[in-house]
Amino acid sequence: MNDTRRALTLRRRPAGMPGPDDFTLIETPVPTPAEGQVVTRTIWLSIDPYMRGRLSDRASYTAPVAIGGVMTGETVGEVIASAAAGFAPGDVVVGSRGWETHSLSPAQQLTRLDRNGPPLSTYLGVLGMPGTTAYSGMLDVGRVKAGETVVVSAASGPVGSVAGQLAKRAGARVVGVAGGAEKCLWVQETLGFDDCVDHRTMDLAEALAAACPKGIDVYFENVGGAVQAAVIPLLNVFSRVIVCGMVAQYNDARPPPGPNLGFMIAKRVLMQGILVSDRPERFAEWRALAAPWVKDGSLRYRETVIDGLENAPDALAQVLRGGNFGKMLVRVGPDAA
Amino acid sequence: MNDTRRALTLRRRPAGMPGPDDFTLIETPVPTPAEGQVVTRTIWLSIDPYMRGRLSDRASYTAPVAIGGVMTGETVGEVIASAAAGFAPGDVVVGSRGWETHSLSPAQQLTRLDRNGPPLSTYLGVLGMPGTTAYSGMLDVGRVKAGETVVVSAASGPVGSVAGQLAKRAGARVVGVAGGAEKCLWVQETLGFDDCVDHRTMDLAEALAAACPKGIDVYFENVGGAVQAAVIPLLNVFSRVIVCGMVAQYNDARPPPGPNLGFMIAKRVLMQGILVSDRPERFAEWRALAAPWVKDGSLRYRETVIDGLENAPDALAQVLRGGNFGKMLVRVGPDAA
Repeated sequence: MNDTRRALTLRRRPAGMPGPDDFTLIETPVPTPAEGQVVTRTIWLSIDPYMRGRLSDRASYTAPVAIGGVMTGETVGEVIASAAAGFAPGDVVVGSRGWETHSLSPAQQLTRLDRNGPPLSTYLGVLGMPGTTAYSGMLDVGRVKAGETVVVSAASGPVGSVAGQLAKRAGARVVGVAGGAEKCLWVQETLGFDDCVDHRTMDLAEALAAACPKGIDVYFENVGGAVQAAVIPLLNVFSRVIVCGMVAQYNDARPPPGPNLGFMIAKRVLMQGILVSDRPERFAEWRALAAPWVKDGSLRYRETVIDGLENAPDALAQVLRGGNFGKMLVRVGPDAA
Repeated sequence: MNDTRRALTLRRRPAGMPGPDDFTLIETPVPTPAEGQVVTRTIWLSIDPYMRGRLSDRASYTAPVAIGGVMTGETVGEVIASAAAGFAPGDVVVGSRGWETHSLSPAQQLTRLDRNGPPLSTYLGVLGMPGTTAYSGMLDVGRVKAGETVVVSAASGPVGSVAGQLAKRAGARVVGVAGGAEKCLWVQETLGFDDCVDHRTMDLAEALAAACPKGIDVYFENVGGAVQAAVIPLLNVFSRVIVCGMVAQYNDARPPPGPNLGFMIAKRVLMQGILVSDRPERFAEWRALAAPWVKDGSLRYRETVIDGLENAPDALAQVLRGGNFGKMLVRVGPDAA
């Protein structure tokens, strides 16, 4: 057992794309749990686009990470010391902790995982926060009906890939938008989307219109920018837009203007901003629903793994550039024994 | 009885503000009803901002009025000839007809009114399409709770005045936005809003922030433009925006860009475009609910009346400029006997 805890703290607020120089690697002793607490060693660290918001001091839905504070993030870890009833060394847990090799957490913030279930990393992606986001967005806002057309941006990512597969299960025509031929091929052939538009090489307006001959009934928004602008004119009467992310603008100091909202009246569009933590009950619901689908292979996913905590800043930059393929993970420590 | 029907037809699509030269006054014989039809003489013609959309060939929720076609509009009229069961001369009816002194209508498109109830003109305003729009918007989208803060633009208009009074009845703090000191005074003193911001003389962002110290939970959007831009930064988490109208831009050939939609995620905002005709059941519901309030004086309204069908184009221009005060009506013929 390693007696030193390593952690990445925020050194300064990045201008534009974040990088390693924006963080400091610190070393401290592994903490000891007090009553009700658990100490874990990190196995997997999740890297997600929302993290860019935590680095800036712009007002958002939660406070930013303080300068000098450990960067936050979801992890899967193994309990190495416990002073909490119901948790013992060797247990594997998922929770919102930080960019660190060891975490001290109140036990009630952790969820114990089945070590004989799906791969542990999936609890950060397809079965975790991103998958639950897709599930809640489609269930609570999208309400897709058979025969409708659904467009999903960032379609090969951990949110978009689940959103689109759920829409396929609901009997919709599903069109993805992704960056590059390789991702588009995977979105169509492996995920089973009906079509996929490559935003790097295609004229978005033209390609989307061709892929959506009956217009768009549901748009799962993960990127903003040019994709959003191309989708809006194709929205149908009574369409729904799940406003989940706008990764295209997360590095912008001043986000660009958006769409004139007149289309919302003409088409009676519903747009709803979502944050998965507003509906905490959806996490367990989704794990119970989707774990069997992951085990039987009917719910597909893809992961990009980078080794070593110190590479987390680069992993985040990759996500913000769309350089990842599927769920971005940092392997911080060896798998559970 | 007048044997000549006069009607205003669309001569050309106006560029910018519409005016009399965009219409032609035609005269034709008063028609005779066929089986199931009714002929009415128009008493009141309603003038509403949405009419600007009917004059342009931009795609919207209904087809535009054809060049040479009679301009559409809601009217209250008196039946002068009937070939439909249940309708007899002397009956007073409301329905969607046109800018004309006499209308031939299928009976099922008309609603008979109680001649001993509220003033007939109110069926085009507070009890009609605008009032029902406000009612449906607040009920189906706004869902305001006691203690919340509601902002209503075009607050002295027939939609805004009802929306705000309904929010007051629900126990909310209600802030209006209107153009000019006279309207603002009426909004506060007669309608009972808690505050009113004059968009002609006040700094919108400053005045709204001062009037809404706890932020904005519901925004009833009737105008767009600068008011919308000032409201958005004040929206609270889980706020709702009823996107009903954007009269500030109806004359624009190319509407300006709108807000970057990032705020929707940070605040988990719900925005919904509405059109009252999507929920036809709300009309009768609202008449039944609100007619007693109009009679007992607890639901306040104001009307601007212009005499003569030929002045309808000027009346529409006034509405688009915000020159009306309350519901804009054209008196086309004498009241029912």
